[in-house]
Amino acid sequence: MNLLAEFIRGIAEYEKLADEVVADEAILRESFFGSRPSAEALIAEWDGKPVAFAVFFENFSTFKGRSGLYLEDLYVKPEYRKKGIGKAILSHLAGIAVERGCPRFEWVALDWNRNAIDFYEKLGAKKMHEWQIFRISGDKLEELAHASY
Amino acid sequence: MNLLAEFIRGIAEYEKLADEVVADEAILRESFFGSRPSAEALIAEWDGKPVAFAVFFENFSTFKGRSGLYLEDLYVKPEYRKKGIGKAILSHLAGIAVERGCPRFEWVALDWNRNAIDFYEKLGAKKMHEWQIFRISGDKLEELAHASY
Repeated sequence: MNLLAEFIRGIAEYEKLADEVVADEAILRESFFGSRPSAEALIAEWDGKPVAFAVFFENFSTFKGRSGLYLEDLYVKPEYRKKGIGKAILSHLAGIAVERGCPRFEWVALDWNRNAIDFYEKLGAKKMHEWQIFRISGDKLEELAHASY
Repeated sequence: MNLLAEFIRGIAEYEKLADEVVADEAILRESFFGSRPSAEALIAEWDGKPVAFAVFFENFSTFKGRSGLYLEDLYVKPEYRKKGIGKAILSHLAGIAVERGCPRFEWVALDWNRNAIDFYEKLGAKKMHEWQIFRISGDKLEELAHASY
C-alpha cells in the first residue's frame, strides 16, 4: 500500500498534477483490496527493487458483449527508463487480456506526447483519433444529477 | 436479454457497424447477470414501451483512488428523439455517480458529431481534448502478448 501511494505521488509529480491526488492509503486499500475491488495493480522490479507500476481494470464493449482490459496508468521511475520495462509491462498486460478472453486492450495518451504515441503505434496499437473523451465532475456533476427534464 | 440484444443491434445498425456486433444473448446474459457482471444496463420507457437504453460500468482514477462512472453506450430509438430522454438518462446516471461517491462521470463521442458535442457541453461536460485513445486487438494483441523484450 505504501508502495502504491508512493508510485502514485511519483507519477503525479512527474505530470505536475500533484495537487490533484486525493488517494491516500486508506482509499487505495479499499479500492484495490476491499470487498469489491475496482482496479488491479502490477509492480515491476529491477534487481529486486520496485521500479515501475501499472494500474488497470476491465472495461466493457457493448458490441463485443465482453470486457476489455483498460490501462489507467503506467509509470517507470525516470532512472529506469529506456530499459524495455514499459514494453515488458504492456506485453504482460496483453497476455492477461488474451488469457481472460478480453478482445481489446486500451489506454489513453496525451496528444502532444509524440514519443509515447510512436512507441504505442510501433507496438501495433491504433490511435482511435475520431473519439473524444467527455468528463463531468464536481458541481457540474451535482447539477446534472438534479437537472430538470 | 432479448431487449438488450435488440437495442444493441439497433445502435449498431444506426452506426453502420452491424458487422462488428458479436454479442449474442448468451454472452450478454453472462456479462450483465453472470457471477461477475462487467457492466450494467438501464432501459428507459415512454408510455410503458422501452425506447432507449444505456450501458455503463465503473472505471477507476488513480489520482482519485476511486471509481468513476463510465457510459459506454446511449441509444434512443430514432422516433423518440428530441423528447429529452437522452438528458433524462444522463441526469439519472449522474445521480447514480453522486450516490456511489464517484467523483467523475465520463463517456466518449465521435469528434464529427457536432450535435452530440454541443449537447454534452451544454450539460456541463468538458471535452478532454488532449487525450487520445489507443487500442490494440486481434492479431496485434496476440503479438504483443508474445513480444520479446
